[in-house]
Amino acid sequence: MKDRIHNFNAGPAALPLPVLEEIKDSFLNFAGSGMSITEVSHRSPWFDGVINDAIERVKRLLKLDDQYHVLFVQGGASMQFCMAPLNFLSDGRSADFVNTGTWSTKAIKEAEIQNKPIKVVASSEDKNFCYIPQNIPFNKDAVYVHLTSNNTIKGTQFETLPDTGDVPMVIDMSSDVLSRPLDMSKIGMIYAGAQKNMGPAGVCMVILRKDLLDLVPDNIPSMLSYATFANKNSMFNTPPCFTIYTIQLVLKWIEETIGGLEKMDERNREKAGTLYDFIDNSGFYKATADIGSRSLMNVTFRLPSEDLEKSFVAEAIENGFGGLKGHRSVGGCRASIYNPTGIDAINDLVSFMKEFEKKS
Amino acid sequence: MKDRIHNFNAGPAALPLPVLEEIKDSFLNFAGSGMSITEVSHRSPWFDGVINDAIERVKRLLKLDDQYHVLFVQGGASMQFCMAPLNFLSDGRSADFVNTGTWSTKAIKEAEIQNKPIKVVASSEDKNFCYIPQNIPFNKDAVYVHLTSNNTIKGTQFETLPDTGDVPMVIDMSSDVLSRPLDMSKIGMIYAGAQKNMGPAGVCMVILRKDLLDLVPDNIPSMLSYATFANKNSMFNTPPCFTIYTIQLVLKWIEETIGGLEKMDERNREKAGTLYDFIDNSGFYKATADIGSRSLMNVTFRLPSEDLEKSFVAEAIENGFGGLKGHRSVGGCRASIYNPTGIDAINDLVSFMKEFEKKS
Repeated sequence: MKDRIHNFNAGPAALPLPVLEEIKDSFLNFAGSGMSITEVSHRSPWFDGVINDAIERVKRLLKLDDQYHVLFVQGGASMQFCMAPLNFLSDGRSADFVNTGTWSTKAIKEAEIQNKPIKVVASSEDKNFCYIPQNIPFNKDAVYVHLTSNNTIKGTQFETLPDTGDVPMVIDMSSDVLSRPLDMSKIGMIYAGAQKNMGPAGVCMVILRKDLLDLVPDNIPSMLSYATFANKNSMFNTPPCFTIYTIQLVLKWIEETIGGLEKMDERNREKAGTLYDFIDNSGFYKATADIGSRSLMNVTFRLPSEDLEKSFVAEAIENGFGGLKGHRSVGGCRASIYNPTGIDAINDLVSFMKEFEKKS
Repeated sequence: MKDRIHNFNAGPAALPLPVLEEIKDSFLNFAGSGMSITEVSHRSPWFDGVINDAIERVKRLLKLDDQYHVLFVQGGASMQFCMAPLNFLSDGRSADFVNTGTWSTKAIKEAEIQNKPIKVVASSEDKNFCYIPQNIPFNKDAVYVHLTSNNTIKGTQFETLPDTGDVPMVIDMSSDVLSRPLDMSKIGMIYAGAQKNMGPAGVCMVILRKDLLDLVPDNIPSMLSYATFANKNSMFNTPPCFTIYTIQLVLKWIEETIGGLEKMDERNREKAGTLYDFIDNSGFYKATADIGSRSLMNVTFRLPSEDLEKSFVAEAIENGFGGLKGHRSVGGCRASIYNPTGIDAINDLVSFMKEFEKKS
């Protein structure tokens, strides 16, 4: 086996090699501190430099003005499924949810378990979530609209965000954050588990429009309140320093090596386009998501039989391609091609897929 | 400056150098996977090996039988301040809390903010928390007794745990977990943020006696329920893989290099004894915690004046000793000497302290 494989895992996922190399090189002595980044105090100029640089880079990349907080919260997107309703729905008013798959369904469940009044205003469950609903009847009096922008398991993605009028969107962007430029004008909050486009598992980035803090009640536990994180620059308690440091380096890579989100988008479209084109022109592989709803991040596809899918995944591993098995809840195959994945990995994968088809 | 300093930070804190070196060496290709540990799927044999080995090592070190779950939860000890009352106090019954300093006070606050019925049965606030209360009048009908076993900021520690009769203890052991053998017979739950004795920041280990799960209500959010973590081996959602991996290596180091918790205890007593003996025999330095209540993990002390303390901390840094400033809420000086700190670091510190005294 080669030293490094092509990693198509859905998350935790591939990271840019230069980022990994920088972490490795500085691992015993971070920035001349005489300590590993894992040993440096979070109340030190070293770590202040890390977290503040990460925040500034996010603000530059997404063109955020001072209306927004950039926060780092533990517990992944799953914790946000709980925190968003807890923080924003304390006054009896309702939120609209769009159900586009497994993760939306979980977000809905965690609101309902708290007895929060929510309305599911659209769902693509009728066709096993293979498309993104259009012309959604949003409620004008909703506190917010909850969306999952990209659906890792079903391989679908909002091509453009819907028009929610004056109602702010709260969007789970765990699997497509920072993969393309974003119009923030209708967005109240974004949250994104780090382990796909941004870094290792262990932190969730939350971008919060400040006026939404007015909704947060006083009588909720400190660690579940967005106000705590906003007031303490995400350091009410010890943050996951190593994870945030890695994110800082990935952000630097997006900004300085790739050249920003327009370039990132071009690169991601080229990658996904190459793979979908190959699949669509093959009679052997078949994409599962509807055209117009296809994810640029998670390309889901089937082979003519489950047996062939099994052999495909097994032979792929032998040939240095990891993570191509579909999610256990849906089967099939999936190539997750987040920001760090290069076009070289896609080209190599297409070559392998051609070879596999030929001899099958 | 030398490549590596003596790191006396209170947390995040020093890690064993062999652990850091192993992480560094395998950082681009973990266990022949062709991926970094930060890129490996949590649903893979590689990560199963990591988390299950970590759990088994904790069980062996603490001699835990099958009554206990070993869980990994995000959000640090601060999240446990919220979760323990939420999970265990849903039926109207009360818990006893012992207040021994900043962290106990925060745990009490997070129970009160949820309107949970609790009783503070003892406090050392009358003497600025410089001692551990004795002969505490516990309530026989309490659901649990909450303690902070070691007080990082005030430099105190329970020398032995109190007798709570049939009431299980729930103990915040963030700063002395795995530093000595432990009699688990009266313990219902231990929780410990990793970033002092166990690993990097970003995860809290929770050791939970299974019968306490009977108290957990169904109608709480999944990410706040101990049942979720117990039922899914801490992998309901993506866990902080890198942090757990580092903990696994630290546990291996405690077990295989140090030789277990009796040896760890001997080593920690030698370290703390050397430092306290020197301080007690000096007319210049003065320990702040009462004899009998002194922490083996955080040695807090004062110099004759605040000006001298400032110079001491500054000169220490110049000489390669980091983290000796006391917590911002109490001032003074503090040497945090958790498991990874070696006796060499203590001897070097004592030499420096002698020199500083001589010329002051």
